[in-house]
Formats: sequence, structure tokens, C-alpha cells
Amino acid sequence: MHTRFILLNTSHAGNVGAVARAMKVMGFEDLVLVKPRWPDVLTRIEALERASGADDVLRQARIVQDWEEAVDGIEHLCATAMTPRDFGPPTVEPRAHFADLVRQQQGSAEQPPLRSLGLVFGSERYGMFNEEVYRCHACISIPTNPDYGSLNLASAAQVLAYEWRQALGGFQVAEAPSVTSARRADAGQIEGMLAHWQQMLTGIGYLDPAAPKKLMPRLQQLFHRAGLHEEEIHILRGIARKMQQCLKDRNP
Amino acid sequence: MHTRFILLNTSHAGNVGAVARAMKVMGFEDLVLVKPRWPDVLTRIEALERASGADDVLRQARIVQDWEEAVDGIEHLCATAMTPRDFGPPTVEPRAHFADLVRQQQGSAEQPPLRSLGLVFGSERYGMFNEEVYRCHACISIPTNPDYGSLNLASAAQVLAYEWRQALGGFQVAEAPSVTSARRADAGQIEGMLAHWQQMLTGIGYLDPAAPKKLMPRLQQLFHRAGLHEEEIHILRGIARKMQQCLKDRNP
Repeated sequence: MHTRFILLNTSHAGNVGAVARAMKVMGFEDLVLVKPRWPDVLTRIEALERASGADDVLRQARIVQDWEEAVDGIEHLCATAMTPRDFGPPTVEPRAHFADLVRQQQGSAEQPPLRSLGLVFGSERYGMFNEEVYRCHACISIPTNPDYGSLNLASAAQVLAYEWRQALGGFQVAEAPSVTSARRADAGQIEGMLAHWQQMLTGIGYLDPAAPKKLMPRLQQLFHRAGLHEEEIHILRGIARKMQQCLKDRNP
Repeated sequence: MHTRFILLNTSHAGNVGAVARAMKVMGFEDLVLVKPRWPDVLTRIEALERASGADDVLRQARIVQDWEEAVDGIEHLCATAMTPRDFGPPTVEPRAHFADLVRQQQGSAEQPPLRSLGLVFGSERYGMFNEEVYRCHACISIPTNPDYGSLNLASAAQVLAYEWRQALGGFQVAEAPSVTSARRADAGQIEGMLAHWQQMLTGIGYLDPAAPKKLMPRLQQLFHRAGLHEEEIHILRGIARKMQQCLKDRNP
């Protein structure tokens, strides 16, 4: 779904750069600024520094003078605001609301598919004014510490960019195999390894066959919990073998 | 669950402040820095500025010289790294892994309850070294744009703080009533309002009874979709009434 980030009256150039980076890292690139404090904010050094490799988002960004131009072409607008407004749109949590928007993407018998979303962020000092919140379809509130809800502008953008990308299906995590290629050891392999260890532990004098103190059942439980892999059986037997060999070398 | 944020060799004081803010806003406060670039990082002006109201987290933070001290008392350690390492812990996505840790909080017949989590972040330039990742139980990778995965340190901390807080049950959204106190209008009220509007629309000449062009069924569908509330019925009837009154005043 086409997604636009709309920043109203932003005063810190660094924040604009950080928002660009937060967007790009989650695969979004349409950034519109309404009356930023600095007309040259997109090329200021603080913006470029905080944007890091996302300077292309800054280059494509648009600066406009009014709300109508900023929201042009966007079907659903979410205000971001910590405090709900009387008579304003419903206050919603990001995860639940984004899941709902993804469902609306399909369309239904009564409603055409939703094709575009605008996320609107107020200024660092004042947030969004009531009149701005009223113009949105929903008011998204990121759940925060009741004693300290002061989320930085770029942090709020990062959380919503992440949450929205997740709702849209998410990106793949780099090369993480969803299933490891290792094989589980079977019960016989584990029994064999434990018998080998029992021998070795007796040999080094840690296990006293006259007073075994449940040592072997404990080790068995530990290895069961770990869910041993075949290759780990080889490692554990290798340790036992080497230990026995050392003993033999020292007491020929 | 007790949660510690562990920053390794952090080089930007501003990032340390921003991490403190990201933590506090999600209700976490245990911050440990291992060998930061600046020994006085916790009191540097950039750190204090970016921490905003979270300077208490900075004041309580600890600077240590080695890993052992940093992880002391923590049972489960998550490395944060974009690239999986051979022979390292499994690479996991934050949402799924955090849900699993919350389940482990309960404990089970074979495993005691999990009581503490450490989230470990590498330096801005190098991320985490293999040897550091190996010491963790899992390697968390935040799913990002395959063409641009460069997440700022504080942004990564914010996303994980948010996601972990959500997994732990989340905070309440300020005053957002989970159910509105408004009442739905019933079918009779909607019919009455529509009859009133039909009268008014005919009166102002927008609806031609000789060629109604499905205007009324269309309005009916629009209002059904909106799911009208009782109070909105009053507003809509008020509009019709006022419109009719204006007509009467102009054509006495």
C-alpha cells in the first residue's frame, strides 16, 4: 500500500533526517513536510547526517505550505497523538489498527480496497493541534509508560514504520534459516553417549558407582532439555574419549 | 521481567541519551555500558539533550569494563545483529522470540521460570563481534529493507523496547475507551431520518420525485456503512429541519 509520512511544522532538521532513515529502513520513501521551521531543512547538515544512507528519501521529499497539498491522493489518514481529543477520530493502538487497514486493503462487498495511508506527525513542541487531528480518520497512540510518554519524533516514526511494515507482511530476516539443517540425535545415540560418559566419569573419579547420587539421570535430563543434535553427540563422545585417553597416558 | 539494555563500545554520546529515552518511554531503566568511547558519556551534553526527560536513566546507568560484569544476574541474553553468524545462536525475529520468552516466564515442568532478559547492542561502527554474539542465547534481527538495513542504534533500541513491552502486555493507551459510549441508531431512527431528508431534498430541488435516480438508496447505503450513532441522527435531522426552515423564511 502506498504510504506517506507527513511532518507538520517540524523544527529540528536532525529529526527530519532521522525520520527519512527510519522510513527507508522499513521500505518507505514518500516524505512530505508541511511548513517546516527551516525552508532548507532537506539539505541542512544535521538532516543529512542523521539520514545516513537515506539521503535519497530527503532528495525526493516535498515541502508544501498547506495540509490539502500534503494529503493529496491519500485515502486514509492517521494522526499520531498521545492524548485523545474530544469529538476527534477514535484513538487506536497501532498494531490493531494496522491489522484492520491491511484487511481493508482487500476491499469488501460494501467498501472498495484501501490503497493509500498517510501517517501524520505534529511538531516536536506542540504535537498536533485539534483541528489537524480532526481531519484524520484515526488517532494512533503508541502505548507508552504512563509516567513518561515523551517519544521522540523520529522514534515514533520508527516504531510506526516498523509496525506498519510488519502488518504488511514484513521483510525477511537476513539468511536466517527458518529450520536449521541440523538433525536431532535419536534416543539410541543419546543412550550410547551417556553410557560412554558414565564410563569416563567413573574413570576420572567424579562418579562413584557405590554412591551415584542420581548424577546420570540428571545429566540425561539436561541433555534431553537441550534437545541434542547428532553432531553434538559426536562432540560429547569426543570429549569422553579424549579424557579417557589422557587418563591412560598418565597411568600407563 | 527484569530487563537490562547493554551497550558495547558505544561511540556517540547522543545515542546513549536517545537509548535512555527509548527505554524509559517503554518503562525500562536498567542501562549498562561496556567500555564506551567517552568515560564521561553519561554526563556529556549530547547525551543529556537526547535523553530529554530520561536523565534519571542516565544517572542510574553503570559503566563497566568487561562483559562478565555487564551480564551479571541476567539469565537470557539476546544479541542484536543484522547478519547471522556461523556456529552462533539461532537468528530470531523479535516478535516471535519475545512471545516465546513471555511463555518461558511461566516456567514449566522441566524449566524454571525465566526472570531476566538482557538486550545487547554493538557499537555504531562495527556492530557486535562474533565472540560477543556467541555469548548470547539468541541473535535478534529486526526485519528491515533488504536494500537498506542500516538501523540507527537508538532506533533499534526503540523498536525492541516497544516490541518487548508489547510482548509483556503493553501499556494502556491514554484514556482511549476500548468501547465508545455512543449508542448505535436503530433501523427505525434511520428510516425516520431518511424520510426527513427525502422531504428536505425534494424541497430544495435536489431530489426530483419524477426522476429520483436511486438517490435515496445511495444515501441509505452511505449511512449504513457509517454505522450511525443516535446523536448523529439528531444532527442529520437538525440539518434537514434548519434547511426546511430557511426555505420557508425565503418563500413565506
